[in-house]
Parts: sequence; C-alpha cells; structure tokens
Amino acid sequence: MLKFRPNVEAMEPYVPGEQPPAGAKVIKLNTNENPYPPSPGVQRAIEAELQGGAERLRLYSDPRALALRQAASDASGFPIEQILHGNGSDELLAMLFRAFVAEGESVAYPYPTYVLYETLAHAQGATILSVDFDSDFNLPRALFNTDARLTLLASPNSPSGTVYQPEQLRELAASLKNGLLVLDEAYAEFAAFNNLALARELENVVVLRTFSKSHSLAGMRLGLLYGSRRIVEGLGKVKDSYNLDRLAIAAGAASLRDGDWTRANVAKVRATRARLEAGLRELGLRPIPSESNFIFARMKNPAQAAGAYRFLKEKGILIRYFPARLLDDGLRISVGTQDEIEALLKALKEYLQS
Amino acid sequence: MLKFRPNVEAMEPYVPGEQPPAGAKVIKLNTNENPYPPSPGVQRAIEAELQGGAERLRLYSDPRALALRQAASDASGFPIEQILHGNGSDELLAMLFRAFVAEGESVAYPYPTYVLYETLAHAQGATILSVDFDSDFNLPRALFNTDARLTLLASPNSPSGTVYQPEQLRELAASLKNGLLVLDEAYAEFAAFNNLALARELENVVVLRTFSKSHSLAGMRLGLLYGSRRIVEGLGKVKDSYNLDRLAIAAGAASLRDGDWTRANVAKVRATRARLEAGLRELGLRPIPSESNFIFARMKNPAQAAGAYRFLKEKGILIRYFPARLLDDGLRISVGTQDEIEALLKALKEYLQS
Repeated sequence: MLKFRPNVEAMEPYVPGEQPPAGAKVIKLNTNENPYPPSPGVQRAIEAELQGGAERLRLYSDPRALALRQAASDASGFPIEQILHGNGSDELLAMLFRAFVAEGESVAYPYPTYVLYETLAHAQGATILSVDFDSDFNLPRALFNTDARLTLLASPNSPSGTVYQPEQLRELAASLKNGLLVLDEAYAEFAAFNNLALARELENVVVLRTFSKSHSLAGMRLGLLYGSRRIVEGLGKVKDSYNLDRLAIAAGAASLRDGDWTRANVAKVRATRARLEAGLRELGLRPIPSESNFIFARMKNPAQAAGAYRFLKEKGILIRYFPARLLDDGLRISVGTQDEIEALLKALKEYLQS
Repeated sequence: MLKFRPNVEAMEPYVPGEQPPAGAKVIKLNTNENPYPPSPGVQRAIEAELQGGAERLRLYSDPRALALRQAASDASGFPIEQILHGNGSDELLAMLFRAFVAEGESVAYPYPTYVLYETLAHAQGATILSVDFDSDFNLPRALFNTDARLTLLASPNSPSGTVYQPEQLRELAASLKNGLLVLDEAYAEFAAFNNLALARELENVVVLRTFSKSHSLAGMRLGLLYGSRRIVEGLGKVKDSYNLDRLAIAAGAASLRDGDWTRANVAKVRATRARLEAGLRELGLRPIPSESNFIFARMKNPAQAAGAYRFLKEKGILIRYFPARLLDDGLRISVGTQDEIEALLKALKEYLQS
C-alpha cells in the first residue's frame, strides 16, 4: 500500500475548530476573531478589482504582491524588500519550517502555545524541544543557547495573552548561534508594545503579523513577515509563486491604508477586555492579565471549567476549552462586543450559581 | 551567518514571469490565461459574500471548503471525500511533495515539462530523475518501474501541448510499486479526453485540476485534487488549515456550477487554436498539434525564435520563449481571442519578411 512519509503517517488528522453553520444564532468567542467589520475601504477595493464583469480575475495575481507590501512598508517604515506576504501567517510559518529545518533538526518553543508549531514540526520531521512555562508565563531559560533552527514565540502568547520583555528577546536571539527567532505577533496590535524594531535590528529575528485579528480579515487569509532582506529573499524560493489572489491583495492593502479604522477597533476591544477581566474576577475566576484580544481565565478545577464550556455552548455561546495539561482548568474567551461579553458574564454567573 | 537548509541555499531565486504593468496596452499570450471573462455567477457569488459591509470577512473561512468541494463533486461525480482544495494547483503539488518525499528520496518527470516540479524537488531536497522526451513527446519508458515517490506528468504537457495514452498511464501506475502517479491536468478541459476515471480506479493515481485556465480564474488561486480517500485525508495533515479565503471558495463554487459558460469558452479557444495552428503552418513554422490552450511551434533555429520573441515584444505582443535545451528553437503562444491571434500572425509574418 502506498505510504506517506513516516512522520506524516504518524501525524493525527487535522480537526478543524468549531465553526457554527451559516445563519446560526451564536455568540462566537472561540477563535479570536474581531467582533467589528473590516474597513469600508476593503469592500471598495475588492469591488474596484471586480469591475467589468470580474474580467481581471482571468489574469494571474501579482506574485510579489507589490500593492500590499508597499502599503505595509508605508505603515511600518520597513523597507519593502524586508517584507514578505503570506496566505495567512500560517503559510509564512510553514515557509520558515521548509526553508530552515531539515529532517531531524530541532525547533524549540514553550508550552502551552499556538498548536500549529507542533503540527509543522511533525510535518517537517523535526525534533521538538518543548519547554513548559512557569505559572507566570515567563520566557523559559531552557530556550536560551539551544541549537534549534527555529525558536518560535507568540507574543502575545496564546492562550495566555502574555508578552515577553524586549530585553529578554534580544538576549535570546543573541544566544541562538545557529537559529532564527520567530516572533509571532498575531495579536501585537492589542498589546502595549511590539518587537518590530528587533526584526529590523537583528538578522536572526523575524516578526510575523496577521490580518485575521486587528484587521478583521480572518476570512481573507493574509499575513506578513518582517525581517532581513536575506531572509525575505531566501523564503521567496520556497514560496508558492502566486500565493495571494487578486482580491486578497486588494483587501489587505486597503486595510493597511486605513490605520484609523483598525486602531479604533483595537481601542474598543481593549476597553471591552478590561470589562471582561473585571467581570471574570468578580465571578471568582482567575483571569491572566491579557495583552491580546482574548483572556484565559482559570477556574477551581478541570471539571468546573469543562462544565462551564458545555453550559455556555448549550446557551449558544462558544468559547475555547483546551482539555490539555496546564490548560484544562481554564477557559479562553475572545473579546467580543460589549453586549456579547455582558451576555457571556451573565451566563457564566448562572452556571456558577446552578 | 544564519543559513537556510543547504538545498534551499543552493536554489536560484524565483524570477516571476513577465506581467505587464496595469493599464499597459499589451496582447498577453505568455502565461496561458483564458482570454474570456469568468462566469457572471462568479461576480454575483463574491458580491453576495461581501454583503453587509463585508462583515463576513472578519470570520475565518471554511477549512474544508465544503461549498467548493460539493460543487466539484456534483460536476465530476467524484465523492466529496475524494476531493481536496488547494490555493492553486501549485499548492496541491507542494503538499504532495511534503507528504510523500523525504530528503534524498526521488521524484521523476519528463523533460521538458512544467518547471515547478524541479523547484519543488529542490525545496524538498529530493533526488531528481528527469528523462528527455523523444521528438514526439511520447511517454518515456525510463519512467516505468522506478522507485520514485512521485512521478509527475502534465497532461496535456506544457510547453508541448501533447497528451499521453490512457493505457500507457495505467501501465505506468501499475509499475510504480512505491510511488504515486500525479497527473497534472491543468489544461485537460481543452483536450479530447482526460484521466479522472483513472484517479477513481487506482489508489496510486491523483489528478490535479486548476481554475486558472478553463475557468478564467487565474487571479483567484484555486485548484483541486481528485484521488483516493486515503490520500486526500493524509494530505489534509500537511495542508494549511485555512488555505482558501472566503471569496475564492465562493468564486470557485459558482464557476463549477456554471459548466455551460466554461464549456462555451473552451469551445471558442479550441476553434481559435485550430486557426492559430493553421496560420503558423502557413508561415512556415512547425507547430506541435496541441490539446491545450497554447501551441508550441518550432522555427528554423534558436536565433530566429529568439528574434521573433523580441520582435513581437517590441510590437506589444507577449509570448513565451524558453532559452533552454530542446526548447530554444520554438515559441509558446497562448490561444487568445480571434483578434489577438490574427494580430499575432500578422506581426510574425512581418518578422519573417523583415
């Protein structure tokens, strides 16, 4: 019988996250989407690209995505040659694994973090160095001075919502003689600071950004990598040539050009995040102070947390429960609208009183 | 200094194909795009997805792309579980390499063919068995009974436009004890027959299709793989979860549901292809009879062919010239509209008389 590579044969099949059927009346706080719509400029840009009976769609998209990268350069001050576009930051992560990690070489990351790092490591046949966080989610010392080809840190981290100290990241990068430090800043727009400057300064640091959170464009699959020119050029060799379609390029560029819209939505999410944190605390949960658009809050024990997840789902409120080590006593709740968060807190209160 | 994997370091940087700047008045016959617009249903489907200020774009797309795969199943008779969606068939090719080919394992294909196979082999660190075609582009016997993990055949082949005999493909698949036969049918809708039935019958055969040619959707990046349930499930493990955006899924499904539109455009292209072949022959070129939406035609010698390419470019007509072994005495010309092909033939005549 035809066999996949042994490391692929051994992988678990992917189980997509819960997506309620179209039209279902659900409060969706489980995948950290933005509760507010994208910039009106996004729709206008897509419609402009569709002019003339969508005739332009018959032509290939720009493999260099210049319109998108120029907008990113203008918004960030990074030179365009140091910016690479991905079909979501997930694709950029996959490219990094393919370009840097040979079979049997190692990658490193803390636990718990974004589960895709493990999936990509298995797909590449990599050796994994996974180091548990302490209870405050500090950067683990065991990640320093390794020979990992990639060291992956989400900052803010998911599901904890915590960030790292910039000085520590600089020290970590310097200790990785043979490897790249990948700072996955999917949620950085919701944080007090970010590490773009570090990616500009150090050749072995890249920063990833996504349009799925602050830009309200999870459905368009857009991500960006900021790094040295050398890394951007090398990654281009393993990139699918036409990895972004015409409408995605137009949508992403338009969103970057409307920074006011994004910042206003981020401000609203941060205000609601404060309300959510206070509300959870009032109910006796232990929320971890979050720099992201979600909050992880611990309960008394795993049974109570799992019960809360099921109770809320019954009420039409989807949140995320991880039945996993170090996480199974908590809930991860995306910051929705004010109304959605009030509904969530009300339902949680009911659960705790039942 | 930070190093990529050795096989990636050794790769040549990707050079994107010639894309005329937006608004340039050019007859574009160089990348085998469809000269006719996509189905009107495509625009309607995209606009429906944008309703309400594009609010839906804030939500993740369907990782299983059910709407697209159901439409493909309805159109092909293949069970939906045996169909996988890609961000262009290029992404499906990349997935096949990642899932089946470990470093140092071999892949096989004829020469000349689609250059991406070589790029992907290098990116994966694979050993390449490349076998020259004979002058009639028959399936090379040296591809039988190899231990290649992937054997890649474009049918119709690019740039020759030729197809393989189905019985030979069946025999080839049976001879590949340890490997998968990948039939890249990007251009199959323009041919007299295709091999979808073989992918249904044999576990080690997959067929790839693209929306970039017959569906006039090169700008939307859509491809499909048809194969056994086991292969589709395994490939799902190395697939980016959300590899297609919402608008691409909607566009692809709508196009599949309007088979009449696609078939009408294909019929027009085939009629113009006959005119192009006859016209090239009248001018003394030696066109290879094509089952695709392009024609490869040989000239007296490489100097004459390269000169024709430059002359046509000067006149605002882009065609493809390959300065490579076995190809440098010919031109590959995409089948455009009747008017575009008449203009091309007129300019070629001028060149030959100059």
